[in-house]
Amino acid sequence: MTTQLESWNNGAAKSAILDFVQKVTTTNGPDFVPPAERIATFDNDGTLWLEKPMYIQLEHGLRAIGRAAAEKPELRERQPFKAVYEKDMAWLGKAAADYAKGDPSGVLTLVMGLAEVLEGITVEAFEADVLDFLSNVQEAHFKKPYKQLTYGPMVELVHYLQDNGFQVYITSGGGRDFMRAVCEEIYQIPRSMVIGSSVTFKYGEDAQGIPQILRTREIEQPIDDGPGKPPHIHRTIGRRPILAAGNSDGDIHMLKYAKGHKGPSLALLVHHDDTQREFCYDGGSEKALQLAQQEGWIVVSMKDDWKKVFA
Amino acid sequence: MTTQLESWNNGAAKSAILDFVQKVTTTNGPDFVPPAERIATFDNDGTLWLEKPMYIQLEHGLRAIGRAAAEKPELRERQPFKAVYEKDMAWLGKAAADYAKGDPSGVLTLVMGLAEVLEGITVEAFEADVLDFLSNVQEAHFKKPYKQLTYGPMVELVHYLQDNGFQVYITSGGGRDFMRAVCEEIYQIPRSMVIGSSVTFKYGEDAQGIPQILRTREIEQPIDDGPGKPPHIHRTIGRRPILAAGNSDGDIHMLKYAKGHKGPSLALLVHHDDTQREFCYDGGSEKALQLAQQEGWIVVSMKDDWKKVFA
Repeated sequence: MTTQLESWNNGAAKSAILDFVQKVTTTNGPDFVPPAERIATFDNDGTLWLEKPMYIQLEHGLRAIGRAAAEKPELRERQPFKAVYEKDMAWLGKAAADYAKGDPSGVLTLVMGLAEVLEGITVEAFEADVLDFLSNVQEAHFKKPYKQLTYGPMVELVHYLQDNGFQVYITSGGGRDFMRAVCEEIYQIPRSMVIGSSVTFKYGEDAQGIPQILRTREIEQPIDDGPGKPPHIHRTIGRRPILAAGNSDGDIHMLKYAKGHKGPSLALLVHHDDTQREFCYDGGSEKALQLAQQEGWIVVSMKDDWKKVFA
Repeated sequence: MTTQLESWNNGAAKSAILDFVQKVTTTNGPDFVPPAERIATFDNDGTLWLEKPMYIQLEHGLRAIGRAAAEKPELRERQPFKAVYEKDMAWLGKAAADYAKGDPSGVLTLVMGLAEVLEGITVEAFEADVLDFLSNVQEAHFKKPYKQLTYGPMVELVHYLQDNGFQVYITSGGGRDFMRAVCEEIYQIPRSMVIGSSVTFKYGEDAQGIPQILRTREIEQPIDDGPGKPPHIHRTIGRRPILAAGNSDGDIHMLKYAKGHKGPSLALLVHHDDTQREFCYDGGSEKALQLAQQEGWIVVSMKDDWKKVFA
């Protein structure tokens, strides 16, 4: 039995979603879209799960960088190892603040430090480490394991779309292989349907001659964010989405891409306006919120449109 | 009703396939593999369709390069435009012969020339051009449109695996978007399940402000061939295949990767030994054929194992 978005309050957002799905699934209707073309793409951080007070993947990265800096004193002579080891909140805070203002240099230094630390490990070893972190480390504010901090109404929407013949993909600005560790468990989205940023890989063979995929320290270009998202979507899916959901300026190009579909399309922008149950912030989403009306995107108010926030 | 590989003769290859599928699909059996992990990867050129006397995609590329050289005389001052325009069979033949011997420089010059000619066009325009070529141009030797030159027993095998809960991917050393133009029609493989080589893309907006994905002239690294295949497979699927099929030395790493699966695995190597119905050649497959026995790969004889060659 298909859900009817029970964790959503009645209102413009819920109606827009129900109407859209009704329309594209009505056989012989003027807006019918065959299942093969029912592509939906969902941003992850801030759209499907928590991204404040810190990106979950950033917390994982800081731990790995900190462990490496503790083990190898020579690393502490340079960034990001020095700041992480010394818990230099001024440096780390500036990296985060700059990123929100559109200057990714500090965050890139962290990302490159992490890629360096993880260079040469197998994709399986990385995944096991991520799964352990997401399952066993408790998030400081909500006091729950990270993997439990998904947004219930959005996960319900993913399942509602899947039940209606949609192929639902994640398009994360963060790491693709990071989300693959839990996507099947927490969203019931197959790992082949996760698009995201990544390092590149190389082929190797272990001591027994068994082929292994090893991480390099090279960041694959483009990052799956902003104008990088549509090319990533094309590369993986080969079709333009008819539905896209995001929450920040990094999702603008993806939302426009979906709305450029010839035929029916729907773009959703999750607005973090719930002081009580989550956090209230527009930082990093100012342009998207400003564009929403003229572009015909549906703004989803966490406060008004959702009966609950977390799954 | 599931096929039982009716276009295959009884013999070691057919038995190995039927036994393997039986084994991994037997619930509660010791070798049961859940559907999510039943990943199969198939090389394309020479495995699923014709690759002689010339790679089909090469014929398409030569035409595009030739058109550009005819329109822009200044291009003819350099390779590959000069050779293609002048039909310089010595230069073109050497490029092909060098490639078979492991020196890709001439073929790379052609690939880069093609990427240059197609720079800036939309992915939809490229796909339409490919579809037109594959549907309407007749192959010189067999006198049929290119898209009809698939191997019937291999297409039957793809469907047999799909019917048994496998997710079947193409992993082409050639262009991913080239195969996407016809994969759904000729193999019933969704375009999101095509892995292959590619240029990179950039985001653009057309005169109406509609987002478009545009081809660049940059070749994405690595090429999806040889040691590049397993990293491509990881990037797209995120799981190790349990079955892989190829026909040439470019498939060695993929076949080894599949055989490295912890649990049951099957690797198939198609051998072009049918002088009557296709072509007889080992060139470019010498190492793979030599490795087959020690690695436990099943060699599929087109002559002995197949009742027919073309679909």
